[in-house]
Amino acid sequence: MDTVFQFTMPTKIVFEDGAAFHAGDQVKGESVLVISDPFLYQSGVARKIGEGLGGRRVAYFSEIEPNPSCESVDTAAQAARDAGARCVIGLGGGSSLDVAKVVACLVSNPGSIYDYYGGGTKQLERREAQLICIPTTAGTGSEVTNVGVFTNRKTGKKVPMLSPLFWPDIALVDSTLTHTLPAAVTASTGMDAFCHAIEAYWNRESQPMCDMLAMRAMKLILENIKTAYDSPQDAQARRNMSLASTLAGVAFSQTRTTGIHAVSFPLTVEFGLSHGEACSITLPAFIRISEEKKQKKMRELCGWLGFADVPALAQAVEDLMRSMNMRTRLHEAGVREEDIEQIAQVGLEAAIIQLTPAEMNRQTVTALLRSIL
Amino acid sequence: MDTVFQFTMPTKIVFEDGAAFHAGDQVKGESVLVISDPFLYQSGVARKIGEGLGGRRVAYFSEIEPNPSCESVDTAAQAARDAGARCVIGLGGGSSLDVAKVVACLVSNPGSIYDYYGGGTKQLERREAQLICIPTTAGTGSEVTNVGVFTNRKTGKKVPMLSPLFWPDIALVDSTLTHTLPAAVTASTGMDAFCHAIEAYWNRESQPMCDMLAMRAMKLILENIKTAYDSPQDAQARRNMSLASTLAGVAFSQTRTTGIHAVSFPLTVEFGLSHGEACSITLPAFIRISEEKKQKKMRELCGWLGFADVPALAQAVEDLMRSMNMRTRLHEAGVREEDIEQIAQVGLEAAIIQLTPAEMNRQTVTALLRSIL
Repeated sequence: MDTVFQFTMPTKIVFEDGAAFHAGDQVKGESVLVISDPFLYQSGVARKIGEGLGGRRVAYFSEIEPNPSCESVDTAAQAARDAGARCVIGLGGGSSLDVAKVVACLVSNPGSIYDYYGGGTKQLERREAQLICIPTTAGTGSEVTNVGVFTNRKTGKKVPMLSPLFWPDIALVDSTLTHTLPAAVTASTGMDAFCHAIEAYWNRESQPMCDMLAMRAMKLILENIKTAYDSPQDAQARRNMSLASTLAGVAFSQTRTTGIHAVSFPLTVEFGLSHGEACSITLPAFIRISEEKKQKKMRELCGWLGFADVPALAQAVEDLMRSMNMRTRLHEAGVREEDIEQIAQVGLEAAIIQLTPAEMNRQTVTALLRSIL
Repeated sequence: MDTVFQFTMPTKIVFEDGAAFHAGDQVKGESVLVISDPFLYQSGVARKIGEGLGGRRVAYFSEIEPNPSCESVDTAAQAARDAGARCVIGLGGGSSLDVAKVVACLVSNPGSIYDYYGGGTKQLERREAQLICIPTTAGTGSEVTNVGVFTNRKTGKKVPMLSPLFWPDIALVDSTLTHTLPAAVTASTGMDAFCHAIEAYWNRESQPMCDMLAMRAMKLILENIKTAYDSPQDAQARRNMSLASTLAGVAFSQTRTTGIHAVSFPLTVEFGLSHGEACSITLPAFIRISEEKKQKKMRELCGWLGFADVPALAQAVEDLMRSMNMRTRLHEAGVREEDIEQIAQVGLEAAIIQLTPAEMNRQTVTALLRSIL
């Protein structure tokens, strides 16, 4: 049992099917900006949520792209200022939620995100607008973290930005929003949530509260993801996946992630994998090495999940991914032998890689990547 | 799995042995009031904590009695105002922590606790003073709840008071403070924490996040309480008990408690049992009836804790209590057959009794009490 830890969760979690469509009671202030991607606006979901806000003035910004850029943040912030927004609602996968976190701050902090991020010299000093995050995948867990990840177009890099002001006031988790997710997105975002849970659990900064939430999240995902993939309208499976995603989000919000996420960055940027695909493709390989420094804990996890040992868990995860047509070999994503060194090098530049429960250096990371080429 | 829930935990948890004695980094403002009972002051603990506050002005109020009265709250509040306290530290078992919650509010809200409590008409509007709670037992869990319980001397009743302003800013959990607890207090407060955990778990308003924290808490208590009782300086056992108490506190802070706590009120007031004794004396009996409405969950709990079934768990808890010289029969506390109806009636007046996973009425509660007379 870890003997020193902290736990900070200023976000109120509201978990209820249908709650996204009558959120008026949760909102403070008369003017709201709803931030989403174009699809959620065009399909009518964003507007339906706006109509449930008790007659408040609602503006919509629906231009959020995957791996959102700082320029998108600034454009959305201008929309929030123009609308006089007292509440910013982020609706979507990780991208719209991440953008909403910064936009809610920029309403009462002058200038551009570049003033505060990636070499910017200003500090976000307060957030006056309320921040509500409503996830539509299960998922990123972004609704319960204080992190956003943005692509700096000036440098071409994806860089995380952290602030205590980024904890949403409310995480409104309504699994009915996930019923229309395409099967491939159900699979990749669900396995991303599994990565969050296991990376919190085996993290070298793991802690007992998060361990328990992560354990429940992993069990829920293993028991429900295939049903959600095969039967997208299965309300119980969807609800359990949304719950798992939020639990995993709370867990990794305290511990951060590990090698899986570190190595995912070059796989997303250079090879075009989605975030969930880029994480889960190395998941079985990382499970296989996790006993190096967390043998006792990994065996307890296997017992909890009903597997004989760590290799059996790794194989089951790989089989599960295959059953959902997910890639489990790097060559399937276009990675060649000569790319391995570069992927390892970029992964090793991320500090979180050292939270992995195994020695992480050029030799071990390239060996891991070669094992799944 | 419960399908609708909320989770609110504005309190930052800092769990670290020794941290209570160098808390200066956590404190805001230059003037601090430390609230404790006379023993913690006279033994030097309160002062040692004050000396670790980085040279701030520290005043002490050390007159908190068990089952604190509203009059004590008002006297402590005057001390806080006189000291110009910008931070109020509650140090102790439940009593001092509960008092600190109100005192931190009364620094910036005029008048007496009676203006806001038990028929008072004012609303606590803001809390300007920082509130830090440092538990010295394991324990009440008060450091992670928004409740205080006070004895209204005007009516003679113990009544809980709730406010969103009562969530401490920081729960500073330092298990070294529990090393000097007398064995009997280790036993009764530890079993109180077990009650919090199981009452959160079987609560009719249970929810998945709290379930997991409660499960870990119960396992930790069963595995460590006897060691802490027999070997008070065993740092690992003490640490695990403090962790369990805080986890259980987080769990019941969301769900509230059930029949065990409802029936404990008359047992404390009329028969002079400590809070922990008054709760745990009915614990085995409540375990025995918990399958009535939570059969599946209780069986899962037994599996997690390593018991064949619910009666086996109840017996093990009773045996554990006996091994620590705790009373398990009401007559040992002076309760007679003719007292049963009155205890049941007072217990049934507490709304939380209906959160018990079994039918609770005059007949069932008197039958339960008679079974352990």
